[in-house]
Amino acid sequence: MTQRKSFGSDNQAGAHGAVLSALARANLGDAVGYGDDPWTQRAAAALCTAFGARGGAFFVFTGTAANVLGLSLLLRPYEGVICADSAHVNVDECGAPERILGSKLLTVPAPDGKLTPGLISAQLADRGDEHRVQARVVTISQVTELGTCYTLAELKSLGEFCRAEKLRLYIDGARLANAAAHLGCSLADLAAQADVLSFGGTKNGAVGAEAVVVMAEELIAHVPFLRKQQGQLASKMRYLAVQFQALLDADLWLRNAAHANAMARRLADGIRGAPGVGLWQPVESNAVFASLDPAHIARLQQDWQFYVWDTTAQVVRWMTAYDTTEADVDTFVADVWRTAQA
Amino acid sequence: MTQRKSFGSDNQAGAHGAVLSALARANLGDAVGYGDDPWTQRAAAALCTAFGARGGAFFVFTGTAANVLGLSLLLRPYEGVICADSAHVNVDECGAPERILGSKLLTVPAPDGKLTPGLISAQLADRGDEHRVQARVVTISQVTELGTCYTLAELKSLGEFCRAEKLRLYIDGARLANAAAHLGCSLADLAAQADVLSFGGTKNGAVGAEAVVVMAEELIAHVPFLRKQQGQLASKMRYLAVQFQALLDADLWLRNAAHANAMARRLADGIRGAPGVGLWQPVESNAVFASLDPAHIARLQQDWQFYVWDTTAQVVRWMTAYDTTEADVDTFVADVWRTAQA
Amino acid sequence: MTQRKSFGSDNQAGAHGAVLSALARANLGDAVGYGDDPWTQRAAAALCTAFGARGGAFFVFTGTAANVLGLSLLLRPYEGVICADSAHVNVDECGAPERILGSKLLTVPAPDGKLTPGLISAQLADRGDEHRVQARVVTISQVTELGTCYTLAELKSLGEFCRAEKLRLYIDGARLANAAAHLGCSLADLAAQADVLSFGGTKNGAVGAEAVVVMAEELIAHVPFLRKQQGQLASKMRYLAVQFQALLDADLWLRNAAHANAMARRLADGIRGAPGVGLWQPVESNAVFASLDPAHIARLQQDWQFYVWDTTAQVVRWMTAYDTTEADVDTFVADVWRTAQA
Amino acid sequence: MTQRKSFGSDNQAGAHGAVLSALARANLGDAVGYGDDPWTQRAAAALCTAFGARGGAFFVFTGTAANVLGLSLLLRPYEGVICADSAHVNVDECGAPERILGSKLLTVPAPDGKLTPGLISAQLADRGDEHRVQARVVTISQVTELGTCYTLAELKSLGEFCRAEKLRLYIDGARLANAAAHLGCSLADLAAQADVLSFGGTKNGAVGAEAVVVMAEELIAHVPFLRKQQGQLASKMRYLAVQFQALLDADLWLRNAAHANAMARRLADGIRGAPGVGLWQPVESNAVFASLDPAHIARLQQDWQFYVWDTTAQVVRWMTAYDTTEADVDTFVADVWRTAQA
Repeated sequence: MTQRKSFGSDNQAGAHGAVLSALARANLGDAVGYGDDPWTQRAAAALCTAFGARGGAFFVFTGTAANVLGLSLLLRPYEGVICADSAHVNVDECGAPERILGSKLLTVPAPDGKLTPGLISAQLADRGDEHRVQARVVTISQVTELGTCYTLAELKSLGEFCRAEKLRLYIDGARLANAAAHLGCSLADLAAQADVLSFGGTKNGAVGAEAVVVMAEELIAHVPFLRKQQGQLASKMRYLAVQFQALLDADLWLRNAAHANAMARRLADGIRGAPGVGLWQPVESNAVFASLDPAHIARLQQDWQFYVWDTTAQVVRWMTAYDTTEADVDTFVADVWRTAQA
Repeated sequence: MTQRKSFGSDNQAGAHGAVLSALARANLGDAVGYGDDPWTQRAAAALCTAFGARGGAFFVFTGTAANVLGLSLLLRPYEGVICADSAHVNVDECGAPERILGSKLLTVPAPDGKLTPGLISAQLADRGDEHRVQARVVTISQVTELGTCYTLAELKSLGEFCRAEKLRLYIDGARLANAAAHLGCSLADLAAQADVLSFGGTKNGAVGAEAVVVMAEELIAHVPFLRKQQGQLASKMRYLAVQFQALLDADLWLRNAAHANAMARRLADGIRGAPGVGLWQPVESNAVFASLDPAHIARLQQDWQFYVWDTTAQVVRWMTAYDTTEADVDTFVADVWRTAQA
Repeated sequence: MTQRKSFGSDNQAGAHGAVLSALARANLGDAVGYGDDPWTQRAAAALCTAFGARGGAFFVFTGTAANVLGLSLLLRPYEGVICADSAHVNVDECGAPERILGSKLLTVPAPDGKLTPGLISAQLADRGDEHRVQARVVTISQVTELGTCYTLAELKSLGEFCRAEKLRLYIDGARLANAAAHLGCSLADLAAQADVLSFGGTKNGAVGAEAVVVMAEELIAHVPFLRKQQGQLASKMRYLAVQFQALLDADLWLRNAAHANAMARRLADGIRGAPGVGLWQPVESNAVFASLDPAHIARLQQDWQFYVWDTTAQVVRWMTAYDTTEADVDTFVADVWRTAQA
Repeated sequence: MTQRKSFGSDNQAGAHGAVLSALARANLGDAVGYGDDPWTQRAAAALCTAFGARGGAFFVFTGTAANVLGLSLLLRPYEGVICADSAHVNVDECGAPERILGSKLLTVPAPDGKLTPGLISAQLADRGDEHRVQARVVTISQVTELGTCYTLAELKSLGEFCRAEKLRLYIDGARLANAAAHLGCSLADLAAQADVLSFGGTKNGAVGAEAVVVMAEELIAHVPFLRKQQGQLASKMRYLAVQFQALLDADLWLRNAAHANAMARRLADGIRGAPGVGLWQPVESNAVFASLDPAHIARLQQDWQFYVWDTTAQVVRWMTAYDTTEADVDTFVADVWRTAQA
């Protein structure tokens, strides 16, 4: 437990009160296990409506699990996944895709974390060559690991490219809510080009819940078996489902994300002009990537929890959460200024 | 949501109030993610103490995940797992061990769900033959899938046999609490022979939490990586940990299990003598396996939720839970009698 | 090198002279690697014609590899393979199917090594249950591991059952030639019900070569990639292909198999009436399974190479090969009589 | 079959006469299968002596299979393999390492195909972080895919670095013979720093045979099982073993490699000064990487078989083999000049 508000990660925040209340409300009597209960059916239906999904929505426990399950719907054993080299599936999942799917990741350097048709094209030269893994899925993160967002136009262009090239599109949506808030669009707008995507609850105020949203009906028959095999079938499913219901009710998910984004904006605005402090990426979500002097980083970390993103580039990542207050930001900004001017 | 108390499974019960309260208490401020928080450290330490484990205790989300993680600590790719043919890992995990571990299960018919040194021996003939999977781990369930318990003497004999044969012993403890309550022994007594075991929280009143307890220190270095790779690393780990803390406090786990066992005992006693109703297995936990006429099964299922275990043998499984009341049991027993005498 | 003819296995025989000659003939100048050469194309086409395959024929190095490649064409990760408990894939491949495919084998006790629609049916109860591996492929061995053959009527009945139940049929044909010789039918007759099958060259006089024959066109697109990924793509493919060409030319494969079968028949006839010697299985190929006194087994093994199949049942396996002579058999038979009467 | 000598790959050459003769000599009578025969034991012992290996030598069929088997001895599931981005395991094995081992490759851009301690260091930052694959094995190719060789001093420096960092060193030696010939050193010199390495026979005049040489005794217990599970256990092993025996006898392997290298040297010398033709990499084995005008590439390919290595850089690869003659080279060189001057 940190005394001051953490800027380390949005998953260091606790759960929103509405989520805990929903758990308590669901705790009445028995429910058939494994999702055959009214809470799960209602929440899944609500997600399908929100995403415009003809397939279905399925709850799992972690972001890594959501990505592995989602990708496992789309791949044969010899097929590969094109992703940015900074992608969570490539960097932060301890090799789960390779180990659980057996698939190779075909990584592309992407300075702003975003793939483009041009970057993807370069990975398609070897199609048909039996010595080479066959590219089959493109996966993007929305919000990216660098805090940037694909615009709707960029998504459309990627979707069209993928369909033309017979590639499937998977979206890692651990922070999809923040993208919707930033772009001012609906979840359905974000999902329109995707075959499968994840929708993160944990970083948006849940205790711990992620959803895999399957857009096309023909893919869903496999999900129950793959989810079970991958250790992600909750027996008391209602407690996952109601977390999402709480976030969906009255668009709490959007309010949480919009607030977190606004706090990142406030932070970025606050440090503008501080000597030696620069923004490394545009602020398009609840992350601020800033470069500053290593000595200043060290001094700030004495009092504040945040991560150094890149030691050689001297870049830090400051994350805000749904429960970060204006006062939290202002105190932190003042400390950044004090440090920078020392 | 079933109106009458379900006898379908102990995972159809809700969560114990103390578990929900613990979630609320943990929901204060920020915590570093992935288990580097005081709640997780306290609960893990408490589990190690209770089990006499020099290694560590690690939280995961489901029983299948606990089994896969536990077994993955003990196996090389060409090594196999000896288990009863009725074992959960063999029957009820959609092939997760084969798929995630790549390991073959070497199954042994065991009429009461229990392995013996003699039954295991028969699987050891091919050691050293490169054409054959090499037996390396023995896995038992305590309570077994048939509701029976290994006595401490049986466990000791299995442990000695395994050590003599250089086999590792894994215990699937999804209902370990019920075994401790039945045998009147400690968790450390149950764990004494094992290399790794799971300890189920979900069926004991948790929202959803299982622990993997690693007895020996030399095995734990691998756990964090394997848990992450298998999609089981909770970012907001505190909410898993405090569920176990709530169950450990004042031995709630034991009281829950003892109560569920007593209700099964009451049920079994209640139906004794009902025409055409027989016990298929001794009642040594919170499960009653009974054989009865298919027509009577169908009639009872109109009003009550429970599963037919074996259609050809006409065996049903009635599970009790920590929150099954004497009145629940008595109403059900009366219905069994009414049906049996119809 | 054994002095006397081995009855241990048909893979202990050397290569047929025609196969070695074919290797020498193919050793002229360069050839494009990986199968894009005239020898490979001719041999693959000849196999397709012989089997009536619209798909294709693909060469690999070992029987285990052929089975794994063949099955990998037919399975999704959560789907299982129904097989006899004595099947080579279950017993003799060191867990390759579980490890490489990730699939569970659903084994059926089959006293004569042969599956029937009835035996298969018992494995289909759990279809649709997400906790259970979903049966998708039936694999049979023709000749079986117990030396028995499915009749064409039995094959037809299995094929019809599989199609009705939406199950795929894979045939492990490591000794398919011996089955054709025994049944007096064509390879196409044997393949008619199968989706994919293997055709063994190694036990039929090759240096080392197996073929995977894919009956249906829609499956072949995946083969090149899966074969490469599984380490079975020969760079100098012509040397695999010409082995099969040599066996196909003038039906050498059939003559080799018919001769081996005749030698087994001669052996079985020869020992008829020897005291304490019984046939354990009907002789329908080049294997004789006999039961005899353990002391007699030990005495015979001092002079002859063969394997004890089942120590508790005191059953031995005597295999003949394409190059076993009548004199070899007669000398051995005389020794069996001498031992039995001692 | 190409009319003119192919410069496409050393695996397009046929087998050396001595190898075919050895096959014929081994084709006498029966031999116990799976390697328990005198030919296999002799050849394995000869390889161990040549490499100074205390462990053992094991025969497999393909280079991909050798790499997968070798790496599988050295890795736990969550451990990764550091390799050059141009490595065969990364580019040319259709994802076999990811699929069969489940391991992630941690690739490093290496302009000349060679890793250095400095390049490897950059991959070690995340050791101990459970979110990241843990680097455990360094794999290098000797000769590299770009035709370059590590010097003995470079190997020593890599070996010392790996031991200091507790990393294992695997050498992909598909063209190890060419490296020995180029460096004028023994196989033992090349193997001295490695834990496991492969030794290619196929590109050196074999019909098709590769060896996995295990330097340390403590690793070999696992090999037989892993080889079988990976589909690489030859039943008629003698025919793999004698190919290596033929190459080892009177250092045929070295004479073959030295000749191929000399032909590459002759080719490189011959084209020196041809207009618009440049060497892209130093010639340190049997490969010549040259850059030339795309129109000239196309014209040459009308008459000659070779591969374009890099379309954007306009680089071609010309490989020589053990049976490439001086006349073959001179004719080709003349054509290059003619084309370049056209």
